Amino acid sequence: MTTEQMQILKDLKGLYEQNKEQALKDYFTFLRFQSISAESDYQSQVSACANWLHNYLKEAGLDTELWTTNRHPVIFASYLKAGPNKPTLLIYNHYDVQPVDPLAEWTSPPFEPTIRDGQVFARGAQDNKGQCFYVVQVLKTLLKAHKSLPINIKLVIEGEEECGSFGLSEILTSKKEQLKADYLAIVDVGLPNSTTPAVTLGVRGIVTMDVTLEGSRTDLHSGTHGGVVYNPIHALVEILSKLRDSTGRITVPHFYDDVTELDEKEKSALAFAFDEKEYYSLFKTSPSGGEKKYSPNERAWVRPTIEINGVSGGYAGTGFKTVIPAKAHAKVSCRLVSNQDPQKIGKLVAQFIEAQAPEGVKVHVHVHPGGGRAVRSSPSSPVVRAFAKAYSEVFAAPCQFIFEGGSIPIVTELAKTSQSDVVLVGMGLSSDQIHAPNEHFGLDRIEKGFLVLGQTLFLLGEEKKR
Amino acid sequence: MTTEQMQILKDLKGLYEQNKEQALKDYFTFLRFQSISAESDYQSQVSACANWLHNYLKEAGLDTELWTTNRHPVIFASYLKAGPNKPTLLIYNHYDVQPVDPLAEWTSPPFEPTIRDGQVFARGAQDNKGQCFYVVQVLKTLLKAHKSLPINIKLVIEGEEECGSFGLSEILTSKKEQLKADYLAIVDVGLPNSTTPAVTLGVRGIVTMDVTLEGSRTDLHSGTHGGVVYNPIHALVEILSKLRDSTGRITVPHFYDDVTELDEKEKSALAFAFDEKEYYSLFKTSPSGGEKKYSPNERAWVRPTIEINGVSGGYAGTGFKTVIPAKAHAKVSCRLVSNQDPQKIGKLVAQFIEAQAPEGVKVHVHVHPGGGRAVRSSPSSPVVRAFAKAYSEVFAAPCQFIFEGGSIPIVTELAKTSQSDVVLVGMGLSSDQIHAPNEHFGLDRIEKGFLVLGQTLFLLGEEKKR
Repeated sequence: MTTEQMQILKDLKGLYEQNKEQALKDYFTFLRFQSISAESDYQSQVSACANWLHNYLKEAGLDTELWTTNRHPVIFASYLKAGPNKPTLLIYNHYDVQPVDPLAEWTSPPFEPTIRDGQVFARGAQDNKGQCFYVVQVLKTLLKAHKSLPINIKLVIEGEEECGSFGLSEILTSKKEQLKADYLAIVDVGLPNSTTPAVTLGVRGIVTMDVTLEGSRTDLHSGTHGGVVYNPIHALVEILSKLRDSTGRITVPHFYDDVTELDEKEKSALAFAFDEKEYYSLFKTSPSGGEKKYSPNERAWVRPTIEINGVSGGYAGTGFKTVIPAKAHAKVSCRLVSNQDPQKIGKLVAQFIEAQAPEGVKVHVHVHPGGGRAVRSSPSSPVVRAFAKAYSEVFAAPCQFIFEGGSIPIVTELAKTSQSDVVLVGMGLSSDQIHAPNEHFGLDRIEKGFLVLGQTLFLLGEEKKR
Repeated sequence: MTTEQMQILKDLKGLYEQNKEQALKDYFTFLRFQSISAESDYQSQVSACANWLHNYLKEAGLDTELWTTNRHPVIFASYLKAGPNKPTLLIYNHYDVQPVDPLAEWTSPPFEPTIRDGQVFARGAQDNKGQCFYVVQVLKTLLKAHKSLPINIKLVIEGEEECGSFGLSEILTSKKEQLKADYLAIVDVGLPNSTTPAVTLGVRGIVTMDVTLEGSRTDLHSGTHGGVVYNPIHALVEILSKLRDSTGRITVPHFYDDVTELDEKEKSALAFAFDEKEYYSLFKTSPSGGEKKYSPNERAWVRPTIEINGVSGGYAGTGFKTVIPAKAHAKVSCRLVSNQDPQKIGKLVAQFIEAQAPEGVKVHVHVHPGGGRAVRSSPSSPVVRAFAKAYSEVFAAPCQFIFEGGSIPIVTELAKTSQSDVVLVGMGLSSDQIHAPNEHFGLDRIEKGFLVLGQTLFLLGEEKKR
């Protein structure tokens, strides 16, 4: 680290300390909005959250716009006064969150942020309000202290990441000029563990679908009709059990056609050890799912999956109801890698499932529009190198290259529209319980996220404009 | 039909007409009690229903007792003034009902009885409040008109038929003397169609169980963990799909050990034609479930089944949640025939299911206590012959012998305790949607049920005491 860089890091730490009390208050305000994008009941909460954040960015000194879409608004904020000789970094976050059920399993209410052992517990504490908020704080505090930023910044914060990014996707083309940037940082991923800094070289794609099975016109009594009609739940389990063979390989024909092997550089990332012992202590289970012939890291990062994310049918309450239901349902998703196209894969899976329908049961698969392709970054891109350097300095440890198994469907589209080099960064840990009860984020990581991004802005300020 | 029998039938018709308006009002009051025995939230409604019915029988002129149990009370009512030379008929009904969900599919509220096209729509309209109520009306109107009944009557009406009959079961031994009877009529079954009278020679037994699968400690993100952990829903569908082979035969070892073939008399009952066309018009599906090598009637009446009555896990709401759930559940039941013992079969199924657990997923099966064995009546029993004759007279058509696929777990125990010949009768139709939304019962069948039972009492009055 140069003396200049050390001084920058010291200054950033000072700024963080100086502002952290107010920043935490504002972060909690942000978390209290029930911005669940997938459930229409929360529409007004999502809007209120967007309006609040838009206003917050404006008061921080950024030029802001609220882009309306057919569903939830997108916040666009920019600082372009670094001038045409400095690079422009487009930063992506989202302000929407996942649903909260099963609600009973939350120790504290999901929309009442609570600090326990240095962790903030709330829905969205990490994914992605927490990660969004340290980004916002870097820009706000630097603008307050220096009246300037070292590079040009564009910030796009959407409200539909958890339900398909349709709003942002539909307006991308019309906003092409405004979104143009040299680099794109997706601040929505994480680290292999709390002490190892890492830049993420890729995310998996995704496609989701709803499976509906219909037997009789209405629910039937399993005494009178048991053994006579084909129970749709039986059809459901029989069909879904055929999606994978005994080795965990997906059996849908042509599913793997567009999956390519990794190059040497990418393979080296997978050498990063998977700690089964730590995994067990965190999740109380072994990494025993997926394709048996691949390692846990390969299965999580660079192999496609098919998962049943929900299943329902018949009576699930207390006691017992001797019913043969009229219908049964499942929610199925695939994580995609390499060149797999979400809609093409969705169609293959749908055809396979529908073809298994037994006599007496109608099977329909609705493949949700959109989805997303997998994304890969080049380890030699300036923005990857700048973040890697900043991570190494803040953590005082060498930065690793990893992959992320999750999907950020809009990333491919956004990278294409903005004509920028993409990088995926963040401060998440697999133990944060995002998408689950008791989601949380560490105050220490909020600080580190602030420092890494701040340092990266200055490092990129030294880069020549591409 | 003798002149005397014709006169009795005419008198019964007169009594029915005379009392039907008030009887319908009282039946509706009975239906309005939300006596859902399986759900503890309805405890007070179940009690209120029992108290009301107890009082109603007392006012009708019967000697009554309210037998308390560990859960829901049993109503016992008797008329013993026919004297020791007349036979005693024990009649069984139940006042509890099934849960009502999915509530949205009811055309009118389940606990607000509504008449449409001569059918009474309500939860319990048929099963079993409707069938119970014509029994009660026969006794009430005969006592009112004649101040006597032609035979001795004992009435036992329980409140836990839909959830295992534990209360009645636990007190049976202590009530042995009071329950002693010559004949036992279980008024809880039905007819093959609305114009064909029939006495039911048997019901299937039942055993029910809950299946729980546990993977990780909490719900996990299907991006980060997809392909790494074994998804409990995958394990669920894989395990449950193995319960039957491609011919529909149940694969659980020793499942069929105690299943015997029918004798010739019983086989003749199965000759009764299954109308596929009518079945389709009623239920909009074909009789394509169960064991392929047996006919629909055999599969419904004299073959055992394994059914999945409910399945749940993950996210089932609107939108999509990319979750790998910590747990998945299923409710499984078996219909039993011949000498199959419910607890023995439950244990075999539980062992089979638990043995399929993959690495990383814990599988536990809880077999519910109780259940019930199958029951068979002799076609030559006096009570079977009396009912058959009354059915033939009221319907003016020859009475058939059929079987019922459903289960009335307490029947075996009750027949044993009361030392009586059992018969199963009733006015249900498979289109009544018992255990489903829009349950209903025809006013015409309520009248026929009244006439058949009334006529039977007089026919049994001519029988010598056994």
